[in-house]
Amino acid sequence: MSEIRNKQIIGVIGGANPNERALKNAFTVGSLIGKNNAILLCGGLSGVMEAAAKGAKKEGGLTIGVLPGYSRYEANPFIDIPIVTGLGYSRNSLVAMNSDILIAIDGQFGTLSEIAYGCIYKKKVIGLNTWNINGVIRAESAEKAVELALSNTLKF
Amino acid sequence: MSEIRNKQIIGVIGGANPNERALKNAFTVGSLIGKNNAILLCGGLSGVMEAAAKGAKKEGGLTIGVLPGYSRYEANPFIDIPIVTGLGYSRNSLVAMNSDILIAIDGQFGTLSEIAYGCIYKKKVIGLNTWNINGVIRAESAEKAVELALSNTLKF
Amino acid sequence: MSEIRNKQIIGVIGGANPNERALKNAFTVGSLIGKNNAILLCGGLSGVMEAAAKGAKKEGGLTIGVLPGYSRYEANPFIDIPIVTGLGYSRNSLVAMNSDILIAIDGQFGTLSEIAYGCIYKKKVIGLNTWNINGVIRAESAEKAVELALSNTLKF
Amino acid sequence: MSEIRNKQIIGVIGGANPNERALKNAFTVGSLIGKNNAILLCGGLSGVMEAAAKGAKKEGGLTIGVLPGYSRYEANPFIDIPIVTGLGYSRNSLVAMNSDILIAIDGQFGTLSEIAYGCIYKKKVIGLNTWNINGVIRAESAEKAVELALSNTLKF
Repeated sequence: MSEIRNKQIIGVIGGANPNERALKNAFTVGSLIGKNNAILLCGGLSGVMEAAAKGAKKEGGLTIGVLPGYSRYEANPFIDIPIVTGLGYSRNSLVAMNSDILIAIDGQFGTLSEIAYGCIYKKKVIGLNTWNINGVIRAESAEKAVELALSNTLKF
Repeated sequence: MSEIRNKQIIGVIGGANPNERALKNAFTVGSLIGKNNAILLCGGLSGVMEAAAKGAKKEGGLTIGVLPGYSRYEANPFIDIPIVTGLGYSRNSLVAMNSDILIAIDGQFGTLSEIAYGCIYKKKVIGLNTWNINGVIRAESAEKAVELALSNTLKF
Repeated sequence: MSEIRNKQIIGVIGGANPNERALKNAFTVGSLIGKNNAILLCGGLSGVMEAAAKGAKKEGGLTIGVLPGYSRYEANPFIDIPIVTGLGYSRNSLVAMNSDILIAIDGQFGTLSEIAYGCIYKKKVIGLNTWNINGVIRAESAEKAVELALSNTLKF
Repeated sequence: MSEIRNKQIIGVIGGANPNERALKNAFTVGSLIGKNNAILLCGGLSGVMEAAAKGAKKEGGLTIGVLPGYSRYEANPFIDIPIVTGLGYSRNSLVAMNSDILIAIDGQFGTLSEIAYGCIYKKKVIGLNTWNINGVIRAESAEKAVELALSNTLKF
């Protein structure tokens, strides 16, 4: 069995047009995912997705981007494995489906759909200054969010 | 141009396991959609989807069900046009995409994903005892919800 | 149970840029589908899809178009029920999936993918001057193709 | 820019129930892809997909599997990066879309749909004892197929 297969996949979701705080949080979350040898998965585009992937690559982590379009050149430069889907926004379902656990940072309706899919697919969803949805576990900081994601003993 | 093409398509979204009030609201919403000669579109399964389709058919309306699976026999008996997708929950995106306007009744995370897609696709989303999401227009009754949906002068 | 639900759905597949003979065949196939009270389903765009839908509407038939894009206004004017998917060419799978039986007329690689999906989903595929694929039943004329499609006793 | 992003992605398509010769060819094709530092992408399941991935991993290559279902544990053990889609057979479109070039080995209708999508998406498709389709470049051996795939000067 491939070594990569044993790694945890942490999905980071959030919008393409975040504020400064969200960008900083995304970068920190990505860095900690990379440092802890987990795989970062995201929607592959800009904003939160790019900041998180940038953080993960800084630490030598592996990054996967599940893209809405047809060309892998649409992925931000910090994505190692761009997966194109041609599904448009319906790819949000695949972002949630491919993650073991999700960290939502800021975000608009696209992020809301990914939070909903995370809950549909019975994934734990950790929220950092994002939609206040029943079922999402709130984290107070980027560090706490990744700690919760990495923890095997996450309680609801 | 086909006459049917000129009709408004109202999507009714809501869960498969609603409470009594939601079922009654769904039936009333469906009835009013049928009576007003609009097309009812839904996810094609049970609960809110079935009650709304039943109401629409009672009034001689046309009903479309966008199904998650591969067999049109999974549609509830009040669906005229079952469309199979084989997309599982990713079909929620298509329910929103195919509606001119959405009425959300009760519902769990599936409904939340459809509300999110409605907003992503710039559709008006009217809520009846459902998720309290910024951007959803709250209606106080089934009658009011359909009135808002049918209105050309809907204001935000 | 809705009366429409009892009708046979015949999928007509073929390219957007057919030759004259293919267009004529598509129109005849569509007319015979409409005359025989079956539902015509197709990809909703131009060429074979439009000619077949035009034929079906001339005879008062019902037509469904499963579209690749997001706007139902992309459907040709002879489609009663346009279904948008946002799936691009991946919607070819849904065209096959939603048909009880398929008639392929002329066509390029899009049609080939629909023939393949028809066979994957265990639908009978009748071919009229189209790809020569093992498993496709060849018809010599538009009339024969529809006769085969309508027949309950189709033998391989 | 990630180093992995510069690698060529070669898609290997073929059925889950191939004969001995096809399995042997798939293993050789995969081995040569791995040895030449390209990425092997496939449908992630058994048969040709598994033999090719096994070959690639033997040479230390990277393998991606685009799966029809929801669980990455359905991937064969030689897949490094399993991507779940929940799209069923509609995922065949994504297998073609994510490859720079395709090598088809043996195969049934699923493979035929992937060949068709390869051509739709303007990818070169190299065939090894597979469907005889106009537009597919025939190779006489596994070695020749990979040589053609790796070549930048492939002519039609």
